[in-house]
Amino acid sequence: MTITATIIGASGYTGAELIRILLNHPNVKIKSLIADSSAGKELSESYPHLAFAGLPKLIKIDEEDFKGVDVVFMGLPHGTTQEVALKLPSHVKIIDISADFRLRDASEYEKWYGHKHQAPELQKGAVYGLTELNREQIKKAKLVACPGCYPTSILLPLIPLLEKKLIKKSGIIADSKSGISGAGRKAVQANLFTEVNENVKPYGISGHRHVSEIEQELGLIAKEKIMMTFTPQVVPLNRGMLSCIYVENEAGVTSEQLKKALEEKYKGEKFVKIAAGNYIPTMRDVATTNLALINVFADRVGGRSTIISAIDNLTKGASGQAVQNMNLVFGFPEDMGLNFTPVFP
Amino acid sequence: MTITATIIGASGYTGAELIRILLNHPNVKIKSLIADSSAGKELSESYPHLAFAGLPKLIKIDEEDFKGVDVVFMGLPHGTTQEVALKLPSHVKIIDISADFRLRDASEYEKWYGHKHQAPELQKGAVYGLTELNREQIKKAKLVACPGCYPTSILLPLIPLLEKKLIKKSGIIADSKSGISGAGRKAVQANLFTEVNENVKPYGISGHRHVSEIEQELGLIAKEKIMMTFTPQVVPLNRGMLSCIYVENEAGVTSEQLKKALEEKYKGEKFVKIAAGNYIPTMRDVATTNLALINVFADRVGGRSTIISAIDNLTKGASGQAVQNMNLVFGFPEDMGLNFTPVFP
Amino acid sequence: MTITATIIGASGYTGAELIRILLNHPNVKIKSLIADSSAGKELSESYPHLAFAGLPKLIKIDEEDFKGVDVVFMGLPHGTTQEVALKLPSHVKIIDISADFRLRDASEYEKWYGHKHQAPELQKGAVYGLTELNREQIKKAKLVACPGCYPTSILLPLIPLLEKKLIKKSGIIADSKSGISGAGRKAVQANLFTEVNENVKPYGISGHRHVSEIEQELGLIAKEKIMMTFTPQVVPLNRGMLSCIYVENEAGVTSEQLKKALEEKYKGEKFVKIAAGNYIPTMRDVATTNLALINVFADRVGGRSTIISAIDNLTKGASGQAVQNMNLVFGFPEDMGLNFTPVFP
Amino acid sequence: MTITATIIGASGYTGAELIRILLNHPNVKIKSLIADSSAGKELSESYPHLAFAGLPKLIKIDEEDFKGVDVVFMGLPHGTTQEVALKLPSHVKIIDISADFRLRDASEYEKWYGHKHQAPELQKGAVYGLTELNREQIKKAKLVACPGCYPTSILLPLIPLLEKKLIKKSGIIADSKSGISGAGRKAVQANLFTEVNENVKPYGISGHRHVSEIEQELGLIAKEKIMMTFTPQVVPLNRGMLSCIYVENEAGVTSEQLKKALEEKYKGEKFVKIAAGNYIPTMRDVATTNLALINVFADRVGGRSTIISAIDNLTKGASGQAVQNMNLVFGFPEDMGLNFTPVFP
Repeated sequence: MTITATIIGASGYTGAELIRILLNHPNVKIKSLIADSSAGKELSESYPHLAFAGLPKLIKIDEEDFKGVDVVFMGLPHGTTQEVALKLPSHVKIIDISADFRLRDASEYEKWYGHKHQAPELQKGAVYGLTELNREQIKKAKLVACPGCYPTSILLPLIPLLEKKLIKKSGIIADSKSGISGAGRKAVQANLFTEVNENVKPYGISGHRHVSEIEQELGLIAKEKIMMTFTPQVVPLNRGMLSCIYVENEAGVTSEQLKKALEEKYKGEKFVKIAAGNYIPTMRDVATTNLALINVFADRVGGRSTIISAIDNLTKGASGQAVQNMNLVFGFPEDMGLNFTPVFP
Repeated sequence: MTITATIIGASGYTGAELIRILLNHPNVKIKSLIADSSAGKELSESYPHLAFAGLPKLIKIDEEDFKGVDVVFMGLPHGTTQEVALKLPSHVKIIDISADFRLRDASEYEKWYGHKHQAPELQKGAVYGLTELNREQIKKAKLVACPGCYPTSILLPLIPLLEKKLIKKSGIIADSKSGISGAGRKAVQANLFTEVNENVKPYGISGHRHVSEIEQELGLIAKEKIMMTFTPQVVPLNRGMLSCIYVENEAGVTSEQLKKALEEKYKGEKFVKIAAGNYIPTMRDVATTNLALINVFADRVGGRSTIISAIDNLTKGASGQAVQNMNLVFGFPEDMGLNFTPVFP
Repeated sequence: MTITATIIGASGYTGAELIRILLNHPNVKIKSLIADSSAGKELSESYPHLAFAGLPKLIKIDEEDFKGVDVVFMGLPHGTTQEVALKLPSHVKIIDISADFRLRDASEYEKWYGHKHQAPELQKGAVYGLTELNREQIKKAKLVACPGCYPTSILLPLIPLLEKKLIKKSGIIADSKSGISGAGRKAVQANLFTEVNENVKPYGISGHRHVSEIEQELGLIAKEKIMMTFTPQVVPLNRGMLSCIYVENEAGVTSEQLKKALEEKYKGEKFVKIAAGNYIPTMRDVATTNLALINVFADRVGGRSTIISAIDNLTKGASGQAVQNMNLVFGFPEDMGLNFTPVFP
Repeated sequence: MTITATIIGASGYTGAELIRILLNHPNVKIKSLIADSSAGKELSESYPHLAFAGLPKLIKIDEEDFKGVDVVFMGLPHGTTQEVALKLPSHVKIIDISADFRLRDASEYEKWYGHKHQAPELQKGAVYGLTELNREQIKKAKLVACPGCYPTSILLPLIPLLEKKLIKKSGIIADSKSGISGAGRKAVQANLFTEVNENVKPYGISGHRHVSEIEQELGLIAKEKIMMTFTPQVVPLNRGMLSCIYVENEAGVTSEQLKKALEEKYKGEKFVKIAAGNYIPTMRDVATTNLALINVFADRVGGRSTIISAIDNLTKGASGQAVQNMNLVFGFPEDMGLNFTPVFP
């Protein structure tokens, strides 16, 4: 069984990554690439590395006949996704890589994104696409809102620990480092090579948007409002995300118990792995793949644990998880098209 | 049909790259990984990114029963490959990534590598594995000597041009830039991050070993001894090779004719592409793939052309071309296991 | 007044940085460079960038007549420094960049460094060279034990806050990122360009040696034993250190008060600056200089603050602070030779 | 004697580098920084690393009273410099870092820069500021047109060789690699970290503007029109330029003679050095300094030489040479303010 896919907003880095993955997928045919501003051009004009991939030309959304489309991947800027999604025919499954449908509460959305949500009805039917934790709902979803990269790296270890009440709900701190591809492809002075190179830059200390979806998901598990400290940082590299998460163990709980809980939760998972022994996960262990690699360490300070969680921000943090979700929606093996070995070095 | 492969010398970067490719190959099973000094260990101890790849433990060469082995990939230091190759049973096909069997003339080998060739009989049966140019011989070969990375990037454009007598045999200059993975994984001060970063380092100006195989192959085509100028350089990046090749057109020949000749020669090739128009090939266009991307430019200086040739030094420049050759030897589709889309960014 | 300096252990990166600074110092003459294993050679054989600096040849320690030496900078591996320091004549001032005399308690030293301290008498006279905080003692010191890079970046903000009891003594977390030059110049596989590039690697989670001197100094201020969580990480760049420090404010204390306290403490300081407004310090703001740049941010989570502290690990984190201390010892203006503007880009 | 300087166009990378150097110059006071579009702001808003340098606020050109100004450094985009220069009072010395006054022939200027020269009278009085080769003229100049970075790295070795007729006038090839700071600070997609990183990109193969000034200067020496092959390339690093220059020796001339000629020409020069023995210059040997480091190598191919020439594109290639020229114009020691030791690593 082959399905046909349309990508709306193919010109960003998550679009390019999505294409890399779908070209490797035996059951998906890329039917069309939609980018209104570049319609009529080849995608290879802006992505020369795709010159020999046999892709269709970019078209306007109005030129697309969605009758023959099974799935639409959406990677538009926030706000725009909502507008476009509203116009799609109902038989089309939507895999959204943007932030538009991640927040369940419309007022939270408005607070963090600065404008009213324009498709609240669609929002109600959206499933938060953290695959390993929402698998059954995703299978039945019409619209999957794929998590952001930071949330993916932070929620995968934290949710099982909160669920089992092994860590305290307060005092959680995530210090996360991201490759600069997370900032997108827009020409911005701060993202020039000369500016990013030889530097580490924290940003959004007072409130990065991703914290809203992290706290939403943690709150759902904890059954109370959770607030956490989050410091995103860009590091001078293309791909990769590493979160150092500092937690307090619940009274009497050891860091070994935390690790064991994660091992149990993710036993048999193809894409979430708990590192053996004291191995400290790094970005390169998972780069270019859909893997998340996690480990838990006892602090010298009693009753505290340090969790290290590594993903590729463009793959498990965006387009890889999107395809993993698509596989669930269409009943394909969950790892279909996603069996990459990390590129190293 | 599935064949079984053994890798001797799996611990270098070409070994890791070979494993990445073979894990993606539907018709190859990695039967054993041989590394005498690390026998008994898991390869993931030195390559954590392979921890979840399901690879066999490292063993000593004496522990291997070659009866069930169809193909051996050899990535040992020069000299050692010869010794080991001599001991392999005759049914085993050898794909050699080392430099041991590239030079046809034993005295040339001795001159460039500083010791007598130890397997001159095997050498006689070796085929130089520049796939697109020696395809028919490779199909029948028992031992394929895969070219070095620099030679691959330089010979692919030059051989067809010399063959058709479109360029002069003298005055050829190749200024080649390589990612530092080409220097291997040995702990060497000069290859530390701090030393390589923010620098470009020419080396081997007075005579890099790769020039011997380049001149050998050019001489075979030109039917006379050819000498060329070659400046290899390391640039601060992991993977990639870019050669700027400066040539004089034969009298009356235009740069357009050079380009046309390459287009004809490589028409229909899966892995050698001539860029359209004036597009200048870069390393990233082919990174992590088996592609070579080439273009020809007319110089402002009359009668001269500049050729730009890009490959990934570890893939088309080493392990990818090795698997391409293996496919030929075993009658598989030439691109089997090698259909990677470049990772970008 | 010109003083003469000898550098023992000039071949590491802190040695090269020290030379860069001393060549810029109007009152210091580099009399000799001692490196037993390379005696007789020019330093420029291993540091070609110093070929035109007019430096003396490397000599053995036994070849040096210390009579004419005013100050010795020591950058030997730990343990060795102690042995050598014992043999120096008493008129010589010692500025130690190694870790040998940082810990006041000999049993702590033995615990963290794995061998008995060999010069406990010298240790007693050593002053911990965190310049801005121990200025008066340093002026009179015979031996200054310069702090490690991580401790410098962490103690500069924390000591004034603990002193004024503005933050809690428990629950302090420092997540620190360092350029790879901090790992030194030894040929180690893990520090190859190919291994460090495109990665972030936490290490020493269970106990990096630098935590011992941090906790020692914090404990002295707090007048009780303090333990903290510390995660050092290497990032793919040459120079720079950024610590994200997470603290709990004391009851009723605001983050603004924390910032104000730092501003007061470091008012008029030449090398410790508190950033204006909400500017987030980055490594590049201080690269190649002796500056520390600090800012304090209120967390979204009530009662918590995030402190960002940036230094150059080789300058303020090592050789720059060493020269700053030397200036104090010899009564020179504290910033003499150290007025570098950051190199950017 | 202290002179006052005004910088027009301080917001680019050459502006920032100029400020770094002038802050280190004992005889120069930076009186004003002119940037019309940012007038009223602090330069540190766009260059936080200059926050503690005590610089004046940015002003509009109309706000400047040039009566008290001795020297103006100009770093505006081409074309604009001409307009502004015309308005400056005649007592002001102009050190131009832009390309506006480098070409002596107005029709050449129009051809390469696409518009008519607007200050042909000023052009007549301009001196091409390749310091070591035009020293006497520069001392008397009212307007010094500082060379581009590529020309500096290429002309320094070639001019003495052509002057002494040691190399042929045809067949000269320069393959030059530049750090990306040469592309400036404008927000351009192609210069994003993600695009530049892990890549080498040739550009301007059909004719980079810098070739016009190179050929102009070579032609003046050779007393005939010279055309050469030039391939500029960007490499993934901030600062540095390395040119590999391929030449044919004149009949009977050896590469040793070429080297000797350069040694004689630059004997006693502070900023142009010929490397000893077979040492191959690299970017890092001169980074952050005003040095040019050159060496000559005999090719394996008879009668040919390879010249390697390294500079820092922002220092000797722009702002450092500008200050060197200013020193000449004002009768200061030529190296005043320029005695930097390379930052390493």
